[in-house]
This record gives sequence, structure tokens and C-alpha cells, in this order.
Amino acid sequence: MEFAYDDRTVELRQRLEAFLTECVYPAEPVHHEQVAAAGDPWARPPVMEELKAEARARGLWNLFLPDARYGAGLTNLQYAPLAELTGRSPHLAPEALNCAAPDTGNMELLAEFGSEEQRKQWLMPLLAGEIRSAFCMTEPEVASSDATNIATRITRDGDHYVINGRKWWSSGAMDPRCEIFIVMGKTDPDADRHRQQSMILVPRDTPGVTVRRGMRVFGYSDAPHGGHAEIDFTDVRVPVDNLVGEEGTGFAIAQARLGPGRIHHCMRLIGMAERALELLCRRVLDRIAFGRPLAEQGVVREWIAESRVRIEQARLLVLKTAWLMDTVGNKGAHSEIQAIKIATPLMAEWVIDKAIQAYGGAGVSQDTPLAELWAQARTLRLADGPDEVHRASLARRELRRWS
Amino acid sequence: MEFAYDDRTVELRQRLEAFLTECVYPAEPVHHEQVAAAGDPWARPPVMEELKAEARARGLWNLFLPDARYGAGLTNLQYAPLAELTGRSPHLAPEALNCAAPDTGNMELLAEFGSEEQRKQWLMPLLAGEIRSAFCMTEPEVASSDATNIATRITRDGDHYVINGRKWWSSGAMDPRCEIFIVMGKTDPDADRHRQQSMILVPRDTPGVTVRRGMRVFGYSDAPHGGHAEIDFTDVRVPVDNLVGEEGTGFAIAQARLGPGRIHHCMRLIGMAERALELLCRRVLDRIAFGRPLAEQGVVREWIAESRVRIEQARLLVLKTAWLMDTVGNKGAHSEIQAIKIATPLMAEWVIDKAIQAYGGAGVSQDTPLAELWAQARTLRLADGPDEVHRASLARRELRRWS
Amino acid sequence: MEFAYDDRTVELRQRLEAFLTECVYPAEPVHHEQVAAAGDPWARPPVMEELKAEARARGLWNLFLPDARYGAGLTNLQYAPLAELTGRSPHLAPEALNCAAPDTGNMELLAEFGSEEQRKQWLMPLLAGEIRSAFCMTEPEVASSDATNIATRITRDGDHYVINGRKWWSSGAMDPRCEIFIVMGKTDPDADRHRQQSMILVPRDTPGVTVRRGMRVFGYSDAPHGGHAEIDFTDVRVPVDNLVGEEGTGFAIAQARLGPGRIHHCMRLIGMAERALELLCRRVLDRIAFGRPLAEQGVVREWIAESRVRIEQARLLVLKTAWLMDTVGNKGAHSEIQAIKIATPLMAEWVIDKAIQAYGGAGVSQDTPLAELWAQARTLRLADGPDEVHRASLARRELRRWS
Amino acid sequence: MEFAYDDRTVELRQRLEAFLTECVYPAEPVHHEQVAAAGDPWARPPVMEELKAEARARGLWNLFLPDARYGAGLTNLQYAPLAELTGRSPHLAPEALNCAAPDTGNMELLAEFGSEEQRKQWLMPLLAGEIRSAFCMTEPEVASSDATNIATRITRDGDHYVINGRKWWSSGAMDPRCEIFIVMGKTDPDADRHRQQSMILVPRDTPGVTVRRGMRVFGYSDAPHGGHAEIDFTDVRVPVDNLVGEEGTGFAIAQARLGPGRIHHCMRLIGMAERALELLCRRVLDRIAFGRPLAEQGVVREWIAESRVRIEQARLLVLKTAWLMDTVGNKGAHSEIQAIKIATPLMAEWVIDKAIQAYGGAGVSQDTPLAELWAQARTLRLADGPDEVHRASLARRELRRWS
Repeated sequence: MEFAYDDRTVELRQRLEAFLTECVYPAEPVHHEQVAAAGDPWARPPVMEELKAEARARGLWNLFLPDARYGAGLTNLQYAPLAELTGRSPHLAPEALNCAAPDTGNMELLAEFGSEEQRKQWLMPLLAGEIRSAFCMTEPEVASSDATNIATRITRDGDHYVINGRKWWSSGAMDPRCEIFIVMGKTDPDADRHRQQSMILVPRDTPGVTVRRGMRVFGYSDAPHGGHAEIDFTDVRVPVDNLVGEEGTGFAIAQARLGPGRIHHCMRLIGMAERALELLCRRVLDRIAFGRPLAEQGVVREWIAESRVRIEQARLLVLKTAWLMDTVGNKGAHSEIQAIKIATPLMAEWVIDKAIQAYGGAGVSQDTPLAELWAQARTLRLADGPDEVHRASLARRELRRWS
Repeated sequence: MEFAYDDRTVELRQRLEAFLTECVYPAEPVHHEQVAAAGDPWARPPVMEELKAEARARGLWNLFLPDARYGAGLTNLQYAPLAELTGRSPHLAPEALNCAAPDTGNMELLAEFGSEEQRKQWLMPLLAGEIRSAFCMTEPEVASSDATNIATRITRDGDHYVINGRKWWSSGAMDPRCEIFIVMGKTDPDADRHRQQSMILVPRDTPGVTVRRGMRVFGYSDAPHGGHAEIDFTDVRVPVDNLVGEEGTGFAIAQARLGPGRIHHCMRLIGMAERALELLCRRVLDRIAFGRPLAEQGVVREWIAESRVRIEQARLLVLKTAWLMDTVGNKGAHSEIQAIKIATPLMAEWVIDKAIQAYGGAGVSQDTPLAELWAQARTLRLADGPDEVHRASLARRELRRWS
Repeated sequence: MEFAYDDRTVELRQRLEAFLTECVYPAEPVHHEQVAAAGDPWARPPVMEELKAEARARGLWNLFLPDARYGAGLTNLQYAPLAELTGRSPHLAPEALNCAAPDTGNMELLAEFGSEEQRKQWLMPLLAGEIRSAFCMTEPEVASSDATNIATRITRDGDHYVINGRKWWSSGAMDPRCEIFIVMGKTDPDADRHRQQSMILVPRDTPGVTVRRGMRVFGYSDAPHGGHAEIDFTDVRVPVDNLVGEEGTGFAIAQARLGPGRIHHCMRLIGMAERALELLCRRVLDRIAFGRPLAEQGVVREWIAESRVRIEQARLLVLKTAWLMDTVGNKGAHSEIQAIKIATPLMAEWVIDKAIQAYGGAGVSQDTPLAELWAQARTLRLADGPDEVHRASLARRELRRWS
Repeated sequence: MEFAYDDRTVELRQRLEAFLTECVYPAEPVHHEQVAAAGDPWARPPVMEELKAEARARGLWNLFLPDARYGAGLTNLQYAPLAELTGRSPHLAPEALNCAAPDTGNMELLAEFGSEEQRKQWLMPLLAGEIRSAFCMTEPEVASSDATNIATRITRDGDHYVINGRKWWSSGAMDPRCEIFIVMGKTDPDADRHRQQSMILVPRDTPGVTVRRGMRVFGYSDAPHGGHAEIDFTDVRVPVDNLVGEEGTGFAIAQARLGPGRIHHCMRLIGMAERALELLCRRVLDRIAFGRPLAEQGVVREWIAESRVRIEQARLLVLKTAWLMDTVGNKGAHSEIQAIKIATPLMAEWVIDKAIQAYGGAGVSQDTPLAELWAQARTLRLADGPDEVHRASLARRELRRWS
């Protein structure tokens, strides 16, 4: 047992911290202004392209991808502490490093399950940061935590598949640079429960695709993730080669995609919590009320200490989960992945809430990143399966040990 | 001791419930569409004017105002259960009844402390629902929970006062119909701690007034309250007659305004919690996951029961506080006003959070009112003095009993 | 709606407060010493008999009994604030006033359902405070929150009933003065679910009755409630006249007994919480750490304020429940009785926990009443039906409104 | 970074688990009966001596002691997972392995700071498990979280020191086998804040030593830790050689003793929580209510999942702290020691509380170990410095990073 990061991780963290300090944090107000000036949340502020170029130059590009053919070839345990750092500036850093959801998961999916042609056409420009992508799984009409509920149909018709259905919370699809949708639907509703689904690639400009609206998250459009769209697929026709893998492998591919996706989310949440705690500390050291800095208030100190205690515990559990994924595989780490999915958003929500309280009105407004960070943390208590589903599953496994 | 509402309250509640059911709830989607169609959050959707006319016709107008010369002449204990009902549709009902903050507090202030001329010029059109008003107290640079921190200056210059300072969270000021600002500033920084401040009326179009921007609340503009503006006052010159009351009475007037304001907020929060609980119940009765309605999940039932228990307790404390305000005055009810200010937002936040969780993605989006209700409840944990300040004060009083 | 106590309640509260201050609080250390000196938790310390005589002389005797033939004839709403006061000294005051559980419920039961002979033989000496009684319902082998689980059999045999079964948590039965057990068992296991049970009177010295041991509650014997016994009933034979009411009415009688029992518990819990808060305040005003009284620590102040807020809310809900019981009956108040059963123990547990923390080692020891108060509050989260059962039931009722 | 235990730890854990399963768990009811039969909580039940002999034979003796001259020579990181296992049977296992507090801390202290003569006279019989020892630091009159408050005086008088003062919570001193007290007092009240105190050895039978009473912990005597005594030291005279180390080193020695003591407590708490979770799972799998096992109740499953999530996080933080103590020393691990002291008791308290609730009446009684486990966990929220003191200190350190 050993709690120190390995040399490569230490070195990359130093390099990434330097990039954050020298480039990303200073770019935050610039980005804010450029978006405001454009008057369009989906505008592509020039500062982002500058950051991407700089990250690339500094060897901080595609760190997320374990496949060394395409990315940095880091283990989960090596990448997790880097993902945490990107969470400190979650609007800029992940995209700057080409490590933003949902593209990361989509790139992993294409690298692992895509055909050579699919990789060439879509993975390469994604790896280059030239286009963005969307993942279309959740549907408005059904509880999507239960995958057998999916109603979208993918029907073979000669050399084509025809897609019909409605998706929402299709992350990434509101970004005008988003060119490709990965859509999950049923190719065979009569097959076994977990063999009914398939994944298929749908270019955004295919006839029959209608992006109806962006879903708001506590009033935010969530532009850094490319927003979340509601999309109609009406008789959408794509070549059979657009299928990812075999028919009936959709559920398995989704599962393979979700594990790393969850740990990335969790690590970024820890970075978000760290950032919130830093902001909280800075605020209370500066702010005077009733004749002394807020930092001298006992209640504020409890918040700080409790935040530190919660963050440390969550981080260790996420790191252990990463280590398990590397050593026994995603399946072997199933319980731990569920555990971090439960623990981390709640922890981050709690810490950010305290920082908001310390800032008062500024905390809920656009003048700090806190309210938006909070909205992301809160949403992760229900996205990718609500906490209650994960808890029920975790409990079943625990009970099985004693029955 | 008697826990039944009196006859007038019962009758008004029935009438108000009928209005909600017949007019307000059906208007909610209409309002949503009209605002969306206008493409401007500050647009004045026609449906609101229809609701206002209907409320007036039904004798549900200006219920908030205890002064029978101008309003319904209800006690706090009579009005509180009505304010609760308006909280069930907080975007429409309060304004439809001309009982929306911050106008309610501003109208009370003018009715109680305004000169005859001030009442004629500003109170009358406000009572008629023709204009709206803003209250400008909080400042960005200082902790406004401590009133002596206020930096805005109101300086006498012949027959005029000259105002200089910056305000933010000036509720109401983003609404284009808002014509009058009530501004708090210091007329005599050397006077006693609570005699330094004065209130003054500043018409919106006075030279030197610059509305710089609207503050966002978790991504929302909070249009129902007329938004929250950041405003510069630079050498703003108004006649001496614009002063409300005497010089040095600003703090006392603010205190007089805050008590009823807090109880109104708290009652509406209870209505918001009730609405959220209704939405939660409806959702879980309908929604199927893993083969049965969510309503059969034990965890969901705990949420419902716990919500009911928390709502009932908070409501009773608010009602007792209203009764105390009526019987021993706002000062005598000071501790209880603090207690409800602490208890009610937390309660509402908790209940609404559970409803959000039951709705999943829809819960954080624009498809239910829940996320926006939550943002309001959360904000009230820090607006009008953060919980921590109220708790410290309440504790001091409790300790005094034993020392 | 009116939140002031009526005149009789005010007068009785004043009289009871005087009795507490003049007699009960000073008797607490005396009682402690007399029990310690006796070396037997079941010893009958003389100070208790003195308190009983004094309470009687002051007209503070049998206040709990709504039946004016036997007791004070107070409504629930009038008695509740008195029960609260007895909770301030829960080891002495309830018994001193002859208002201690389980005798109160047993006396009510005998007054309402007992035959004339039963009332003469058992009710009269109980009302006189000469003997104590036990209530034997819970069984070790089954979940007693589900009454159909009861396994004890009461079998008719000529002019006798023969009782066989094992009970535990038979409150009162460890007290040597306890002379009569009220036992619930099944007379007809084939009848309708709620018509299988009957109640029967079993004198303690009946052959076949074996008190096996006292159950400990967090290490305490709970002597003030007469302890909690595990009892074997083996071929215990009593005359048929010992049946309370008719065969098959046991469930109904139990329900009738539980409603008032629960509200008494809840009111005493509020008194316990008030006592704990007083002790907390006194402690932190006195205790110096790191150069200043604990009372100046912000965290301590949060505890105090939050305690006050929680106590006030719980009290109002209990009082409203008492009012409902008086006006619409125990059935009409069913949901509220469940609500207070959920809310009040949790509240008291929370407040007492904070007082314990303020006292440090003394708080968990015999030097303050706090640890034992805490154990009582904690136990009430599972006695008389665990919170989870009440919450499930409350939720079902709430859901029914919307389905 | 590596999350697997090393080989020696794995091997020792297997051996210890076998000992628990084969010897300790079966001995639990035997011990219970032998203590009950003796009618004296301080009786020395024969089963304990059998367990000690067996543990010794199995090479599971004095594992706690890092000093390889006297003990197993394990690192903190190696011992922590073993201490956890002993926490699964906290009444028997620690003592059976000669790893029970307060003797462990006292032995470490003697091994590190004792003179050769002191080690020979007291350390050797302690290492052999022949006697027990007490640690006398806390005083009833002062807040002992602030060491400068200590009032006990140790005055040089020729070849002797004379000790006067009152201690309480002197753990170990109620055990009749306890022969030696380590007493902290002030030798020089005028020295620097942390140089005023010294430690001195006082044999129990020294004239002037009066063990006045045992402190109760939620009604328990805490016999496994040798109870907690209140002790008077009146003109107690011991030879100067009884001083541990130099005059003025008492505070430093206490600090050195507390670090490992805290981590041992925390690891045992994790074992206690694991045991409680196992008991909870076993109970709910067996217990039927309303027609199905409690294990199928959603609320119960949330408890189980949440317990698992909390235990895992706390364990990792404790292990990391052990690793830090090994790699950068107790001082370098100061913040983490505080963090685990805050996090672990709260976690254990929460988990055990849920197990109690699942057991109903049995949970608070002597029929499960749960209530007593709970009392230990609760007490550790205030023993060795209350949470609030640790949180304040942790926050100061955090704030220092940003100021």
C-alpha cells in the first residue's frame, strides 16, 4: 500500500498545474467576456482555440485516452489526478486539453469499438479537437436508468438503418461544432434484455434529424459540455456501416463507456470542490462583517474543516476505484464505481453550497463560478443513473455476502 | 389555543384556491409560451394582465396590505395562509394579486412612512398594478447584513439631495415597468450607528442612474420579482421632498419593512414546498421503473413523509409568528421572525430537492418549475441576512435567558 | 387561530413550574443519592413518596386523565403543555404527579374499557399511586409493529383463560410495586386480521408468570418507567372476568391506548429537549476554553439557535395534534400523531446530543441527566413502531390525495 | 499509488481472521455469561485468559508495538488493518491480543520514554498481559482540550515528588488488575505553555490515591477499557525516579502518545462499523415484517449502501494517515490525524445507529453489542479533544494556505 502518485503522474500534474496557473485561470474572465460579447452561448470564443493550441504545445492533449495509439496511454490511476485538476476550471480546462465530456467517452467508444473507417472519419477529427460529438441515449418518456425501457427503433432496410425516436439530454448536440451523434436504439426488441440495443453513428446533418431545443440545467445551457439537446429522429436513414460493432452490442458498449465516464466526472467533481474550497477560503479571509473577517467565525471554520475531511475521503475512494479498474477491470470495480457515483456529487454539492453561502449574493450569481458548479454537481446526483438506483444495487451486492 | 383559520381566512382561501385552479394553473404554460415567443425575459405577456384583471374582479387584490385605506386590511395571521397559496404558483400568482415582492414591501413602506404627495405619486399607481418598484439597499462591496457598512451617500445640496453609490441585488429594477427606486444611503455617517441612514425616492429616469446589468440567480433572471439589478448612482439629484420620513430614519424604516417581508417570503416558500410535494407525488404515481411505480419505492415514501412532517412544522411556526406580529408587534416577534427565516428556506430547499430527484433530468430543466423554485429557496438562505447571522442573533437571545 | 394557552392551562403551568422549581429540581440529587445508597435500581427512595404527597397537596395529581370521574378532566390540548413540563425532570416529575408511563396508558385503558370490578380492583390503587402496572404487548420473536404477528395465545378453558407466550419490553414490570400486567394475545387466530387479539389482566403473582430479566436501554435499566421486562407466561390461568372488554377487541383497545400515549411521550420529549437546551446554555456560559466562554464559539451558537428553531416547530405540531385529537378524535388525528412520533424523538435526540457535546465527558456520564435523556429519545425512534413504519404509512396517505 | 496490503499484512490478517472466527466470536456469549454469573463487571472471566493464551500461541500478541525489541515491529500502515479487525469484537479481541487501550498507549510511552528501570518494572508485565495500566490526564474542573488548563501539581520534595489533584476519565483504573497510573501534572506552572507539564508513574497502592468512582458511559462501565475512574491524589509521594523523561516534557510525551492512540481508535471504529453492518445485513435478511424481509425495504437498502460508502471512505483516509505517519512522521500527519478523528467516530455512529434501528428493541438492549458500540463511537466524538477543537485547528491550517 502506497499513497504517493507515480513519477509520470507527478510530472504531468506539475505541468498541468503550470498550464492552469499561467494560462487557464487568466483566461476565465476573458472567456466570460468573449461569450458575453458574442451574445450567443454557443459562440466559439477565440480564447478557447488559443488554450487548445497551448495545451497541445505543452504535451497536455488527449491525456484521457488509455489507448496509446491515439492518446497518452495513461492508466485510470494516472489520469484521475489530472482529471481532478481540470475540474478546477471545468468550463475551460477539459475542453482545452481535449478531455471534455461527452467527447472523451465518444472517442474511447470509437477507439475501442469503431471500425477502421469510423475511426478515420470521426475519431481523427475528434482527437484533433476539430469537431465535437454527442451521445444520444436518454429518452424523455421513460426511466432511462432501466435500459430495457429504450423506445427508439433502429430498423434495417436494405443497406441502411432507419432510426425513429426521440432523445433528450443528448449532451454535446447543442454545440454548432458538433458533427456526429452516437445514437442508442433497439434493433431487436424481442432479443434478450441486454441484447436488444445497438449503437449507430448519425451525422448531424442527416435528413430527419431535428434538434428541437436545449435543455436548461438550473437556468444554465451547460455550454462547456456542448449543452443537452432534445432531438427528434424521424425516418433517419444511414448506411449499415454506421453501426458501431455488431447488432445487439449496444448495451455492452454503453456499459463499457459509462465506467470511465463516471470516474472522470467524479475526479472533476473533486477538482470543483477544491476550487470551491479555495474560493471560500479566499473570500472569508477578505470579507469583514461585524468587525472581523468571516474567517474568524467558528461556523465558517467548521465548513472549511468539514470540506477538507469530505474531499480527502472522496478523492481516496475515487483513486482506489481507478486502481481497481486498472487491476481487476471495470466489472471488478463495479461496486466502487457505484460508490463514487453516490459519494462524490453529494460531497461536491455540500462543499460548493458552503462556498456559495460565504459569498452571499455573489455566490448565486454570475460573478463567481459557484452557482454553475453547484448545478453540475447537483445534476450528477441524477445523471447516469440516480443515486437511489446505485444505492439499491450496491445494497443488493452487500446483502449477498451474508445470505 | 385554536388551530382553525377564522371565517374570513377560510372564505378568502376558498376564493383564492378557485382562482388558482380555474385561472392561474392553466395560465402557467401560456405564460411560458408567451415569454418564449417574445424572446425577451422582460416582455410583458398579455396573460398576466388578464390574470390581474380577473383577480381584481374576484376581490383578490392587494390582500397583503394591512392598511384598510389602501388594501384588504387583513392581519398577518389572515394574510399568511393566502400568501402560502400564492407560493404554489410563484411566477404568476403573487403578481396577479398585486402581492409580489418587492412591490408589497415598497407599498407598505409608502403607506406607512410616505408623505401624502409620495403616496399620491407612487403608491396609487403601484396599488393599481400599473407600475412596479425597486428596493435598493444591498451593495456589492460590503457585507450588507451589517447596515453600518452601507457606503452610498445621500448629500443635501440646497433643495436637493445628491446620491452617489453602487447598489446590487436591487430587486424589481430590471422590469421595464419599474418606475421608482427606493434607495437607502447615509445622510450622516457620523451619527449613531442606526441613525446614519435615510431612504429616498429616485425615479428610474433620473439623470445619473445607470442600470448596469441583471444579476443571475443560478442562471435565472428572476423575472417574476422584476430581476435583480446592479445600479450606479452618480451625482443623482432629486428634490428634498423625495426623502421618505426624516433624515436618519432609514434603518428604522428598513427594519419595519423587513419583518412582514420575511413572513411573506416564508409563507410563499411553504406554498412552493406544497407544490413541489404535489408534483413529486404525481410523478412517482405515474413513473414506472424496474416494473413498478416509483411510488412503491421505500425511499420515495420516506421523502414524501418527511416532506409532510417538515412542511407542517414550518407552517405552524410561520403562523404563530404572524399571530405574534399581530398581538405583540414586529419587535416582540423578532426571535420568531428569525426562526422562520432560518427554518423555512431550508425546509423548502429540502422538499424541492426531493421532487427534483424524482423527476430526474426534467427536474433540473425548464420542463418543471422545480429547479427555479429551488433556486429561490436556496437564495433565501442568504438574502435578507444569511442564516448564520440570524442564528447568531437568536442564540445570543437564548443565552441571555440563562446568564 | 390563536396561539395562547387557555386560562386553566396557564394557571396549571404556573403551579407546576413552581412545584418543579421548589420541589422537583432540588430532589434530583437527593433521589440520585438515595438510589445509589440503596445499591438497588429498583429501590423506592423516600424522596419520591414525599414528592407524590406534595404534588397531591398542590392539586397536581392525575392530570393526565381526561375522564373527570377519575382525573383532572383536561383536554389533550390542556394536558400537553403540562406533560411537557414534566419532561424537564423525566425521572421524577411524571411519577410524582402520578402521570408516568406506562401507568397513564394503563389507567386510561381501565377507565375506558375496564369493568366496574376491574376498575375497583386495579384502577383505584393505580390512581392513588399505591401500585404500578405493566403493559405486555411486544414479543421477542416477531416484528411487533405488525400486530398480526403476535404469537401469545389466550385460550378459553371453562371459567378461565389460559395464557401462553413470551413478551419483552413489558414496561413497568421490573418495578417491585408493579402488581398487575395487561397482556395482549390472540384469542382467535382465525378471525379477521384486527379481531384476533384480546387484552387480559394478569396479576403479577399468578403462577406461571416468570419475569426473566430486565432489558437494558443503552446500559440503563430505565427505572423511572419501571424498567422493561422479558416475561414468560406458561399455562397462566386467570378467571374469565379478567378479560378487558370483549374477545377480539384487543387491537382496537391497543390503538385507543397508543394515540394519547404517543402524544404524552412527544410532549415529555419537548420538555426533555428544553431541559437539555437550558443545561447546554448554562454550561457554555460557564465553561472557559482557549481563553473565552464556550458561549462565544460560533458553532455553539449555531447549536443553540438550531435547537430553539427545532423545539418550537415540534412543540407546535404536537399541540396542533392534541387539538385535533380533541376536536376530530384520535382517528382524525392519525396522520398528525404519526408526524409527531417521527419528528419529536429525532428533534430531542439532536438537541440532547449537542448538550452532551458541550459537556464533554460529563455529558455521557452519570453527572448530568443528558446521556439517559438521549437514550430515551433514541429509543422512541423505534418504540411504538419504528419511524420507518410511520413514514411509510404517512406517505401512503399523502399519495392517496393525488391518485 | 497502490491499494493492496503488503504480504505481511495479508498474512497477519488471515491469521487474525481465523482467530476471530475460531476463537473470539464463539467466546463472546461465553464472556457475557461469565461476567453475568460473576455479578461484577470487573470480574476477570476465565475465557479472556484462554483467549490471551491462544492469541499468544498463534503469534498474535503485542502487534501494536512498532518497537521490534518489545513487539511485532509493524508499521502503522501494517498494524492499522489488524486493529480494524480487532474492532469487530471490541470487548474481547483487543485485550486478547494485548492490544487494548489504554495499555497500548501506555506501553508505547514506556518503551519510548521510560527509563530502563521503569521499563523493567512496568513495561515487562504489561507486555506479558499480567497487569493493566491507567492514563490520568483529564480533570473534572477544566476543559482538558486545552493542556495549559491542567491543575494537578507535581511538586519536588527532596528525593520525592508530591502529587495533588483530581483526575477523571482515567481509563483503565477501575480494572482490579490495574497496578500503575501514568499521571500528568504541572511541575512548573510558570514555564512556557507547553513546558509546564510532566508525566509521573504512580503505583495504584500509593498512599493518598483514592479511586472515588467509575464514570459511566451511557450507562455502561466500559469494562473492556478498564473503566474510567475519578481519582483523588492527595499528597501522593513517589520517588523522583518515577518521573517519565525530564521535567517539562509531559506535553510532548502526551502528544507523542495521542497520535497513534487516535489512529488505533479510528481503525477499531472501522471494524466496529463493519461488524454493525454485518449484523444489520443478517438481521434484515431474517426479519419479516408486513410479509417480506426487511432486506427488501428500500430504506433499509439505502442504509446499507450508504454505510458501505461511508466505511470505505473512512478506511482509506485512516490508511493514508497511517502511511503518512510512517513516511513523514506524526507531526507531518497532524492534519490527517485530526481529519480521521473527526470523520471516523461520526461515520461509525451513523452506521451503528442504522443497525440499532433495524434491530428495534434488541438494538438498544444487551442482546446485541450495538448499543454499547454506539456509546463508544459517540464518546469518541468528544474524547481526546472534541470534534469542534479539531475542526477549528484543521480550518486554521487550511486558511493559512491562502492567506
